[in-house]
Amino acid sequence: MNSSSSSPKVPIPTLERLATYLRFLIDLEASHVETISSTDVEKQTGINAAQFRKDLSYFGEFGKPGVGYNVQELQARIARILKIDQLQPIMVIGAGNLGSALIGYPGLTEHKFHIAAAFDRDPAKIGCLQGNLMILDEADVCTVNADIGARIAIICVPASAAQGVADTAILAGVKVILNFAPIILRVPERIVVRNVSFLQELAVLSYHLSSDTKK
Amino acid sequence: MNSSSSSPKVPIPTLERLATYLRFLIDLEASHVETISSTDVEKQTGINAAQFRKDLSYFGEFGKPGVGYNVQELQARIARILKIDQLQPIMVIGAGNLGSALIGYPGLTEHKFHIAAAFDRDPAKIGCLQGNLMILDEADVCTVNADIGARIAIICVPASAAQGVADTAILAGVKVILNFAPIILRVPERIVVRNVSFLQELAVLSYHLSSDTKK
Repeated sequence: MNSSSSSPKVPIPTLERLATYLRFLIDLEASHVETISSTDVEKQTGINAAQFRKDLSYFGEFGKPGVGYNVQELQARIARILKIDQLQPIMVIGAGNLGSALIGYPGLTEHKFHIAAAFDRDPAKIGCLQGNLMILDEADVCTVNADIGARIAIICVPASAAQGVADTAILAGVKVILNFAPIILRVPERIVVRNVSFLQELAVLSYHLSSDTKK
Repeated sequence: MNSSSSSPKVPIPTLERLATYLRFLIDLEASHVETISSTDVEKQTGINAAQFRKDLSYFGEFGKPGVGYNVQELQARIARILKIDQLQPIMVIGAGNLGSALIGYPGLTEHKFHIAAAFDRDPAKIGCLQGNLMILDEADVCTVNADIGARIAIICVPASAAQGVADTAILAGVKVILNFAPIILRVPERIVVRNVSFLQELAVLSYHLSSDTKK
């Protein structure tokens, strides 16, 4: 119900790879490369050429047989698919180290993401500048968002505070949440949440430490 | 070749969910819950009960029909599967906002992860304390790791520096890398890399912003 009715249900890994292709295409365009083949994509990104073609096939016809893909055109189309062809305001809640890292994250603007507001509940942080952004009071999320209209929230508060700020963000009009707090958020069905868990990432890596490589 | 020969190839999403179950079980144990059912898991984590049973099935028999799963036992077995049943030293390279957030990340110790050393190349940071940890010179990665024996490296340096520090970390004995830099690292086949890309996460979320919810 949240996806556009014209395209079939697209698997999340495909969307993740589209973002990788986009990142890669932006770099290529900056280097004035005009055309690429799916084999080039495989060499540069490590993603199989057949996988690349399959990922694109969800969204219609791309590229010309024997010629390849026009870099600029492909980039524009993927950006449109991912709905990042126009500036997307984002709110960050929690301006600790992680929130600060996100506010200053390079490449956001290139991808048309704009951190429009950052909030914290710590009086020592409220009113301080983080880059060009003044940290605002968490209590003002709703009133501020009536102006900026962010539909994406990034939550970087401690686990104990995360559900509360998520509820507030949704009340303020947020539709999708990137959650860094190590808890499972309870949200209405229409809201999309992605969780980034450092512990999960480390645990998956740890699994790959085979016992034979143990010191 | 890097996975243990006794178990079949386990899909990455299964490993990711195992880490979620583990997190959940640790919380349950802290609340003195002794037994759970797969339905409880579904209710609490949002992961389908059948999926939970299927994930565990890769690793043998778990739980008792009609009784459920012993929380403590299940937790210990998942920790063993993920090889986080003993303290795992980790090195962090790059002590900016993101590196600092990771060094202070709550729950690491609970999962037997131990940030044993953090490095930076900025003379202004080297020698400074971050929590209890003194930031060390990036030039000393190899000599320091001869002592601490970290096989996991977390890379939080800018994209332009990431390949260089990855090469050094591998030279120093690192087997798996959690990479936060927005580039694709080139590593020998035996090395496992997981990339965390904030841009990718945002792009996937952005896709889910259906046009009808647009202001």
